[in-house]
Amino acid sequence: MRFPPILKNCRRGPQVILPKDIGMILAYTGVGKKSKCLDAGAGSGFLAIALGNVSKSVISYDWREDFVKLAKENVARAGLKNVKIVQKNIFEGISEKDLDLITLDLADSDKVVKEVYGALKENGFLVGYLPHTEQAKQFVFACNSAGFREIFTLENIVREYLAREQGFRPENVGLIHTAYLVFARK
Amino acid sequence: MRFPPILKNCRRGPQVILPKDIGMILAYTGVGKKSKCLDAGAGSGFLAIALGNVSKSVISYDWREDFVKLAKENVARAGLKNVKIVQKNIFEGISEKDLDLITLDLADSDKVVKEVYGALKENGFLVGYLPHTEQAKQFVFACNSAGFREIFTLENIVREYLAREQGFRPENVGLIHTAYLVFARK
Amino acid sequence: MRFPPILKNCRRGPQVILPKDIGMILAYTGVGKKSKCLDAGAGSGFLAIALGNVSKSVISYDWREDFVKLAKENVARAGLKNVKIVQKNIFEGISEKDLDLITLDLADSDKVVKEVYGALKENGFLVGYLPHTEQAKQFVFACNSAGFREIFTLENIVREYLAREQGFRPENVGLIHTAYLVFARK
Amino acid sequence: MRFPPILKNCRRGPQVILPKDIGMILAYTGVGKKSKCLDAGAGSGFLAIALGNVSKSVISYDWREDFVKLAKENVARAGLKNVKIVQKNIFEGISEKDLDLITLDLADSDKVVKEVYGALKENGFLVGYLPHTEQAKQFVFACNSAGFREIFTLENIVREYLAREQGFRPENVGLIHTAYLVFARK
Repeated sequence: MRFPPILKNCRRGPQVILPKDIGMILAYTGVGKKSKCLDAGAGSGFLAIALGNVSKSVISYDWREDFVKLAKENVARAGLKNVKIVQKNIFEGISEKDLDLITLDLADSDKVVKEVYGALKENGFLVGYLPHTEQAKQFVFACNSAGFREIFTLENIVREYLAREQGFRPENVGLIHTAYLVFARK
Repeated sequence: MRFPPILKNCRRGPQVILPKDIGMILAYTGVGKKSKCLDAGAGSGFLAIALGNVSKSVISYDWREDFVKLAKENVARAGLKNVKIVQKNIFEGISEKDLDLITLDLADSDKVVKEVYGALKENGFLVGYLPHTEQAKQFVFACNSAGFREIFTLENIVREYLAREQGFRPENVGLIHTAYLVFARK
Repeated sequence: MRFPPILKNCRRGPQVILPKDIGMILAYTGVGKKSKCLDAGAGSGFLAIALGNVSKSVISYDWREDFVKLAKENVARAGLKNVKIVQKNIFEGISEKDLDLITLDLADSDKVVKEVYGALKENGFLVGYLPHTEQAKQFVFACNSAGFREIFTLENIVREYLAREQGFRPENVGLIHTAYLVFARK
Repeated sequence: MRFPPILKNCRRGPQVILPKDIGMILAYTGVGKKSKCLDAGAGSGFLAIALGNVSKSVISYDWREDFVKLAKENVARAGLKNVKIVQKNIFEGISEKDLDLITLDLADSDKVVKEVYGALKENGFLVGYLPHTEQAKQFVFACNSAGFREIFTLENIVREYLAREQGFRPENVGLIHTAYLVFARK
């Protein structure tokens, strides 16, 4: 499993979002140095850290105390000052306003899409990380209902190659699925 | 073809590096707000712009006057001040020093790997974008010879899904190859 | 699009099952020279012909007169004597008994799974060809309910490579989805 | 790992050709009940058995005594009478003539392509199973030199899906590479 230096020393507790999917989020939203981001749930904080690395600020919610603790430790390990982990249940509301990007990696995330719409700035992006096909579809439909536009769903399969004297070829075994990524724009 | 807002209005001349591959470069190198980047060849400037969006500064070389012109126009369209396009042949040398990231998308890029090594800061990253398997292998070998470590090669297949009343499924036809990405660290 | 000689001269009317999926059906069921097969709907008859090429006999149902006509013509083009195309709606029942393999490529195929169970010989195989994820899931559930065992679902992505002087690489654009294949055993 | 009944009880010694690739060979060559096949090297005999299951006859060479023994045992387990395993080095020549299909899964298989051409019947197929990209390319070039036509190279990625109450999605980890398949026709 390959990680960039900023995530290499972080401790992995609950399942983390991997670079292959982090990259999709960064590249297709164009999140950058002026962007204000919200992330939920924090989990181990990997996505929050990756976002903090390229954006102005990140708030990351998690309702579980143990994850909040782990994510905070990882943010410290990564040496980032602009990533704030808070213990909070996103289903109880979003305090922030005018956000450029909101990323959701939690069960029933489609139920918070309307609330998310309100918290985003015009043209802001929502990204849902959804392991199952049913969740991805439901999320797309929720985005539609909430008034989002430019909704699309991506999946990526990343293979690592061996480049050796005896030949060039993909590894034999590897990751073949993490999640579907749904992108939507306000 | 999906592009983030910052690239949406840019004009595509020579074949551009697409978000699926830009994302890999961003995520696996961890390039961020303090990073100084060098990119060659600029081509239409898409990768330079995507890097400029998240990093401190980008210099992008191209030896062709027409590409330099197009890339400059695209940087202006993207509204970035920290991306400088210069007409220069990277095979004649790199003037910059202590770079955090160098990306190479040009023919015979393996021949400039040693020079690149000198221009990178300790722990800095080199990424090669290579359409053919032979090029990827040669690039890996050149990285090894030049003293790079943590060398790995990735390929990603991104599929877009349709989420409709009648069902959820991938599009039938799509992009199945762009290039192999070789990552190496000084 | 690559086709074996036996299908090359056949005319493609409705969307056909392609060799990449035909191969999965042949290889994972182990259909062979002693096997008696049933196929529905016939469509252009491609799967029926491919099955007829390796098995003892194939009956293929289609309720649409035009497809029956086309499939019959294709069977003649393929020069097969052991493939019988009949105009019949499988939802009205299966007359055959003790079949080794039944393949279903039609809307609402999950609704005929119980009937199919009865028509199969002990240890016989059912294969469903299902374009959407919801259909595949429903089909799996229907197989479970009907008493099938060894149920599994596969998808394959086949890429064609260019092998040229200048290098070896996949084609840039191609087919990225046809259908999910559900296998079940009586 | 999924295997059809005919291969399920076979013992796997050296690395076997898997159903995902067996299927490609069956489907793209259209090998059938009238076909006479030659296979080398036999290895555990899996491909020879799969071919024997659908074709008239199969001769399978292997120069290693232990593989010949294992392959013979597997043919017996599969209950096939039309598959003959012989201890023979294909580089020393092919005794058979007028074959419909020759499959090669052995090191330096490109060096036997010319010999293979002579042993095939007009319109017969050669298939090479090649783990590395360099081998696949070399094999294609050897086919060209030997006078073969309709040469193409395929790779397939097969994913298994989980269909459960909680959702439909691919397995997380799986096989991502076996080999490239080169097809050529006399």
